[in-house]
Amino acid sequence: MEPDVMRVSDTYNMEHERRGLAVIITNTQGGVEKDGESMTDCLTQLGFEVTVYSNQTMRQMKVLMSKVAQSDHSTCDCFVCVILSDGGNDNVKATDGTVTISSLVAPFKGHICKSLAGKPKLFFIQASRGRELDHGVNVTNAFSVVGDDADDDYDEVDGESVTYKIPAGADFLLAYSTVAGYQSPRNTINGSCYINALCWVLKKYSTTMDLLRMLILVNKIVARRFQSQIDGRSTIPVKQMPSFVSMLTKDLIFTPKEEVVWVRRVMEPS
Amino acid sequence: MEPDVMRVSDTYNMEHERRGLAVIITNTQGGVEKDGESMTDCLTQLGFEVTVYSNQTMRQMKVLMSKVAQSDHSTCDCFVCVILSDGGNDNVKATDGTVTISSLVAPFKGHICKSLAGKPKLFFIQASRGRELDHGVNVTNAFSVVGDDADDDYDEVDGESVTYKIPAGADFLLAYSTVAGYQSPRNTINGSCYINALCWVLKKYSTTMDLLRMLILVNKIVARRFQSQIDGRSTIPVKQMPSFVSMLTKDLIFTPKEEVVWVRRVMEPS
Repeated sequence: MEPDVMRVSDTYNMEHERRGLAVIITNTQGGVEKDGESMTDCLTQLGFEVTVYSNQTMRQMKVLMSKVAQSDHSTCDCFVCVILSDGGNDNVKATDGTVTISSLVAPFKGHICKSLAGKPKLFFIQASRGRELDHGVNVTNAFSVVGDDADDDYDEVDGESVTYKIPAGADFLLAYSTVAGYQSPRNTINGSCYINALCWVLKKYSTTMDLLRMLILVNKIVARRFQSQIDGRSTIPVKQMPSFVSMLTKDLIFTPKEEVVWVRRVMEPS
Repeated sequence: MEPDVMRVSDTYNMEHERRGLAVIITNTQGGVEKDGESMTDCLTQLGFEVTVYSNQTMRQMKVLMSKVAQSDHSTCDCFVCVILSDGGNDNVKATDGTVTISSLVAPFKGHICKSLAGKPKLFFIQASRGRELDHGVNVTNAFSVVGDDADDDYDEVDGESVTYKIPAGADFLLAYSTVAGYQSPRNTINGSCYINALCWVLKKYSTTMDLLRMLILVNKIVARRFQSQIDGRSTIPVKQMPSFVSMLTKDLIFTPKEEVVWVRRVMEPS
């Protein structure tokens, strides 16, 4: 294989004019408002242009996604969609039924949404994915090992322009609050554990750490810390395990955007 | 959150006595033999105790997985299962029908397989996941940016022993040769593109790079390099996009095992 493909430290170009659009859909009552606010706050801080849509019907959700996918993302780094809802295994609830996640993702595929081709398309889904509850397992961890610095061997990346063909499904990331088949508990006052952990990690590490490493940390925080009784119905503590599906092909670091500084020019009286 | 959970550089303990068991199941003819050999070679090099099972029935596969899960992994770092087969969206072919991937994974969940609880359980699946073909999209990538070193801020990990409760589904990784719904082309002579890329990356970087970063590289190699005509039926080039689902909670680096050196003692004549 030629050196170009084997290059290890390849990172998505996050130095476009704009960070990109972020769409937040909040489709349930109770606890979701807090999560919506947290994600708006966090994504705005990362430089996204955030819009929140509440209580969408099936048709509204599909039309919204098609419309957003058709807008011009050519000056953007990436795209983010956050869905705060209930759901089944591979779908989320609209106000009048359910929509498959794949139908919401489809308009952003590379062959349809060309201005996002080769750029990261990130979907964060806080929703139950089934009716099973996870009652957990005790683990004794004798010690952890600090790994070698994986970056030591990295090659430098040159600034050459290349055209290549990639699969239409490339560069997607789907991050779920839970694994398929399991409930995702919410907290109506403080927001969900998953969104809280996600926002906390993104705010703290987004400019220095790769997205997947951040999501491993979110996995760990939720897996270790979270324990609840679902709506008081169960007396057995319930555990939650987030998961993410990655079709990303490079590291993703939210390198800070240069702040636009508005200089007020004071006209001196002549 | 307390510092223990927030710790960023947490890495799985890969310094147990044994690396662990690796089960390879080869359930189709044509091209799979080469893939089976490549994976055996690669996993042996990583220190795994590899066993290959060919042409398994549904019942044999399920019994095998239960049996392996019930064996004692307490001296092992982790567990690996490789499935080389055909398949549908969430299942793989046995010789007499199909088996869901979740039923093969289930016996390894933390509350059932206690000697692997808190340890990585890795499943690599080279199989089609549907009948759709990906015809790709052209991308012009102006330049790539080298990210900052994400490891700069990492805290040190101490050697304290802790007991904590984790979800039963924690610490699983499912890596697929393709995304759900798509075919996964094979090459009968050289082996599949996915397994070739996976072995190449594991052999080159497993001791220095985190597993998810290696899988990002595999995603990139397959996404960029691979292009085929499925069985000559199509004249339009077909692209392939691997994906992985992670419930891992720490970084995973295959730190080398100390080699057992056999010193031949020569008995001097007295």
